[in-house]
Amino acid sequence: MSYILQVDFKMEGPFGNEMVKEFTDLAKSINDEEGLIWKIWTEDSEAKEAGGIYLFETKESACKYLTMHTARLNGFGIEKVNGKIFEVNEGLTSINHGPSK
Amino acid sequence: MSYILQVDFKMEGPFGNEMVKEFTDLAKSINDEEGLIWKIWTEDSEAKEAGGIYLFETKESACKYLTMHTARLNGFGIEKVNGKIFEVNEGLTSINHGPSK
Repeated sequence: MSYILQVDFKMEGPFGNEMVKEFTDLAKSINDEEGLIWKIWTEDSEAKEAGGIYLFETKESACKYLTMHTARLNGFGIEKVNGKIFEVNEGLTSINHGPSK
Repeated sequence: MSYILQVDFKMEGPFGNEMVKEFTDLAKSINDEEGLIWKIWTEDSEAKEAGGIYLFETKESACKYLTMHTARLNGFGIEKVNGKIFEVNEGLTSINHGPSK
């Protein structure tokens, strides 16, 4: 069983290649987070929003990460963080080739 | 370049194995949607919410799908559909082993 964490928030930037430069070290550290399987980094430079789609091994590890990450974003001056955790429905996901492991 | 579509909404059920039975045919049809690479089916039986994380080849195909899917959900009696489309930041996503293709 695995769990999706979806997070998004308003952000002034950087986006694209500048975002890569700014957050490479942070991305490397995320690989050490308990229960993390993968993260997809998301961005919308027009709407000035960014976020991430994460896959975790357990609901507890997803919850713990969301609490920590929300506090970190608050520290960056980002006040409103949208975060939701869902269980993956493996049967339907496998039909649509979804990467759930 | 690829695009994430994240969708969630309130739903009374079914969840789990019953959800698989109910939506297997729909899942199969989703593989034929223009530009779709994969879909992860998400659910939260306690909060009575469900949704999906989709990867699309283009922003246009993600937008087109979201419009169609919102109308379909409205037809199921689901009035409020949360849907957002983001570009994938490939550089950071590759560091975190994210499945962006």
